[in-house]
Amino acid sequence: MKYIESVKNPKVKAWKKLLTKKERDKSAQYLIEGFHLVEEALKEQVVLEVIVNQEMEMPASFKIEGTDVTYVKEEVMKAICDTETPQGIAAVCEQRTIAIEEIKLDKLLLLDRVQDPGNLGTMIRTADAAGMDAVILGEGCADPYNPKVIRATQGSLFHLPIIKAPLAEFIDKLTIPVYGTALENGIPFEQVEKAEAFALLLGNEGQGVAKELLAKTTKNLYIPIYGKSESLNVGIAAGILMYYLRK
Amino acid sequence: MKYIESVKNPKVKAWKKLLTKKERDKSAQYLIEGFHLVEEALKEQVVLEVIVNQEMEMPASFKIEGTDVTYVKEEVMKAICDTETPQGIAAVCEQRTIAIEEIKLDKLLLLDRVQDPGNLGTMIRTADAAGMDAVILGEGCADPYNPKVIRATQGSLFHLPIIKAPLAEFIDKLTIPVYGTALENGIPFEQVEKAEAFALLLGNEGQGVAKELLAKTTKNLYIPIYGKSESLNVGIAAGILMYYLRK
Repeated sequence: MKYIESVKNPKVKAWKKLLTKKERDKSAQYLIEGFHLVEEALKEQVVLEVIVNQEMEMPASFKIEGTDVTYVKEEVMKAICDTETPQGIAAVCEQRTIAIEEIKLDKLLLLDRVQDPGNLGTMIRTADAAGMDAVILGEGCADPYNPKVIRATQGSLFHLPIIKAPLAEFIDKLTIPVYGTALENGIPFEQVEKAEAFALLLGNEGQGVAKELLAKTTKNLYIPIYGKSESLNVGIAAGILMYYLRK
Repeated sequence: MKYIESVKNPKVKAWKKLLTKKERDKSAQYLIEGFHLVEEALKEQVVLEVIVNQEMEMPASFKIEGTDVTYVKEEVMKAICDTETPQGIAAVCEQRTIAIEEIKLDKLLLLDRVQDPGNLGTMIRTADAAGMDAVILGEGCADPYNPKVIRATQGSLFHLPIIKAPLAEFIDKLTIPVYGTALENGIPFEQVEKAEAFALLLGNEGQGVAKELLAKTTKNLYIPIYGKSESLNVGIAAGILMYYLRK
């Protein structure tokens, strides 16, 4: 049984580094926390090793046989986790690279510079629920392997491909209708017909979708505001549109 | 000109106390931060006094004439604000009590024990955008005057009545259709006809709507999950349903 007691152990330092984007990018690994996420990650076979608080009683239903497990002191768990009260289980996972050629491209969510981790995570979760085939992240989006994003996805990170790609070139190659979202020069979303294949493009929290991208879409949509608010949260807008557009 | 330098000034202590629910309930006051919110609150005439960081240059467009203004040192502003980098302006506002008899009751959002401040604030913002007439908060909801809720509403807190009421009795008195939300024993939302008057009921993040309330509704709806996620975020579900149901 592997056991680590000290937060100064080099292994612990290496795990802790995965809390930074730089290290995640370099190693192509990331950390996840909590039973639900570790369970989902094990199912998807992306787990490299599991880290368990030695004081924690493992639920009988939880299977980690055949996995590389290290038991640690509570302090170690706290040091490597992003949450204030970690559940007592974490895992190092590998980032999988999925080639665009390998995926079904019928229903896509394209995101341009979505920066808030909570928004990005929630949109990945909603895209999963709405049956989208993949989420395409343009440059300037939050890192999908950021712990806050992972938490907000509630496991959906493992359910559909999340692919980084330059959006302008990506849109140029698409043959399905691409719907941008914009407050100006758009049409109300309910004027668009529901379809079995479409790409929906949403943008930055403050600035929306870049003009260069809006110029490349089939149509640009807006969600009418019936009250006095100025706009909708981008995650809410994505939810309304994904569920409206799908046939 | 009123000026406060010390964080130990009794006035500062009183403002700071408004960061607690207990004091907000007792005083029927609350604190807001930032230009956008203060501007909206001034329009709605709920501002009792404005607090300004003396080092801040006030934008020329910003009008606070006729308002009770106190200038403070930056440390004071930091002490009374919930954000880490306050914008330099805050205000004490009064909680307005709105009698249910006074409001239009055509389109209502009813919330049962929604506890996350971000979710509650976002739902108020979306209810405003979707043209709802009021948001009714049952017992166990987050405090709508919590700074995190206010921030997430982006000013919508001032745009439509937010009323606390026991939901069971409230629903009993309604004559419009009431749609609950549930994963079991419900119908897919798209089977319901759009309407000019309806009440939509959403519930707690983990437990959903209480069974006693679901038993009182006209119909209970669910949003189909087409992918592998287990559920939608409650704020996203609210957005999809409010925009779907309205005629």
